[in-house]
Amino acid sequence: MKLVADNLNIINPVIRNALETLDPEPIREMVTRCEIAGADAIDINTGPLSRAPIEKMTFLVETVQSVSTLPILIDTTNPKAMEAGLQANKNISIINGFSLEPQKLKTILPLAKKYKSDIIGYLLYPDSSVPQDASERFDLAIQIHKAIHDHGIEDHQLIIDPIIVPLSWQDGIRQAPEIVNFIRILPDLLGFPVKTIAGLSNLTSGYGNMKKKLRMESAYLPMLAAAGLDMALLNMFHRETIEVAKACVPLIRPGVFSWEEL
Amino acid sequence: MKLVADNLNIINPVIRNALETLDPEPIREMVTRCEIAGADAIDINTGPLSRAPIEKMTFLVETVQSVSTLPILIDTTNPKAMEAGLQANKNISIINGFSLEPQKLKTILPLAKKYKSDIIGYLLYPDSSVPQDASERFDLAIQIHKAIHDHGIEDHQLIIDPIIVPLSWQDGIRQAPEIVNFIRILPDLLGFPVKTIAGLSNLTSGYGNMKKKLRMESAYLPMLAAAGLDMALLNMFHRETIEVAKACVPLIRPGVFSWEEL
Repeated sequence: MKLVADNLNIINPVIRNALETLDPEPIREMVTRCEIAGADAIDINTGPLSRAPIEKMTFLVETVQSVSTLPILIDTTNPKAMEAGLQANKNISIINGFSLEPQKLKTILPLAKKYKSDIIGYLLYPDSSVPQDASERFDLAIQIHKAIHDHGIEDHQLIIDPIIVPLSWQDGIRQAPEIVNFIRILPDLLGFPVKTIAGLSNLTSGYGNMKKKLRMESAYLPMLAAAGLDMALLNMFHRETIEVAKACVPLIRPGVFSWEEL
Repeated sequence: MKLVADNLNIINPVIRNALETLDPEPIREMVTRCEIAGADAIDINTGPLSRAPIEKMTFLVETVQSVSTLPILIDTTNPKAMEAGLQANKNISIINGFSLEPQKLKTILPLAKKYKSDIIGYLLYPDSSVPQDASERFDLAIQIHKAIHDHGIEDHQLIIDPIIVPLSWQDGIRQAPEIVNFIRILPDLLGFPVKTIAGLSNLTSGYGNMKKKLRMESAYLPMLAAAGLDMALLNMFHRETIEVAKACVPLIRPGVFSWEEL
């Protein structure tokens, strides 16, 4: 299971301000800290970037690359920003991502073919609502798979995000174990070893007690890891969660020679 | 998932000394601390109790009962001590346990029928060696199930312990994920909702770094919980592990109404 830093996010005022003023230093520092903490990839989450999308995404990608060679997940709903990021990145890019929303199918999805990059498909309805159960998730996964196939994108480029539901939602507690089971059986359903990603912070979104958040993250992440999750998108500065994430590796990868090496 | 305290163990010098001198106080204190920490049951692990087994087990069980009404797992290889414990206990007893070793089949197993108590079956060969893989575990589970059936013990009395293998063993890392998967599919294999128990401390046995031990426990326990483990036998004073164990509950039990209540 690879760890993807979700720290480089426009929601963080430090990052927002650095982007507004095109100041690379706070971004470099953030990326370096994430890499030291053990990140295997960096998610650049800019939101829609309505003003100067090309300039800003290019600036972000170049800044990240100036201190790191890690793969970059380009996380924006703006197709112009997305393409600018794909063009600027000299390392591995992952498009994060698309859903069955018609606008995204039309504008984001073709970029995966053009740039031969992996692309994350969110299991969301075209109106961005969340599926209610495993059966609805299966239907959406099949539609997502069909969509990439129709656009000439290879199976191995697809990464499915089942969309973790906050525990604070009415059905959050019911959905948490369903999503674990869904991740386990998805490759069998689709008939190929489809990769998966999940945003761990969604689980505790809307809940304030940080100690409890960390504890819930630390308990849920090994369940996802054991189910075969390929990439966990998470806050690399949640030390407790990251330590547990690293401890998962020898428990799920029979190929690892010795747990003392890890 | 219920938490069973493994703290009341003859290996602990405080407990060993209390048992030698028949001093109830250190035992009462230990049991009370385990219950406060969240134990759902207490394992009394005495080893073979070669001298005065009846007197000592009776003393232990009565001492535990003097401060707690929790179920007691009677954990001894000595049939005389086992029966004394079953007779002394006014609360729920669980026999911990038997294997396919002929002596245990003959002396321990009939006690489950006589006292109508649940009984733990270890997935070990008759010579006490550990199975090498899931296929060997399945064979042993079927033999264990046949053994209880032949002794007139009901299916619902059986609790299977797949025997967690230390990560420090040559094949420990290969076995860790296999045991998780085994627990998940065991009820389907046996054709009834068989209960399971696992001794978590086995995982890190033989390894000295306590911080790393706790981290491995904290990562492995949610995997076992998500696989459907019914009882985790563990050190109730490993605070980090216990916190994670409690955080697992809303993530695996769709029946729980709200995670904030937990």
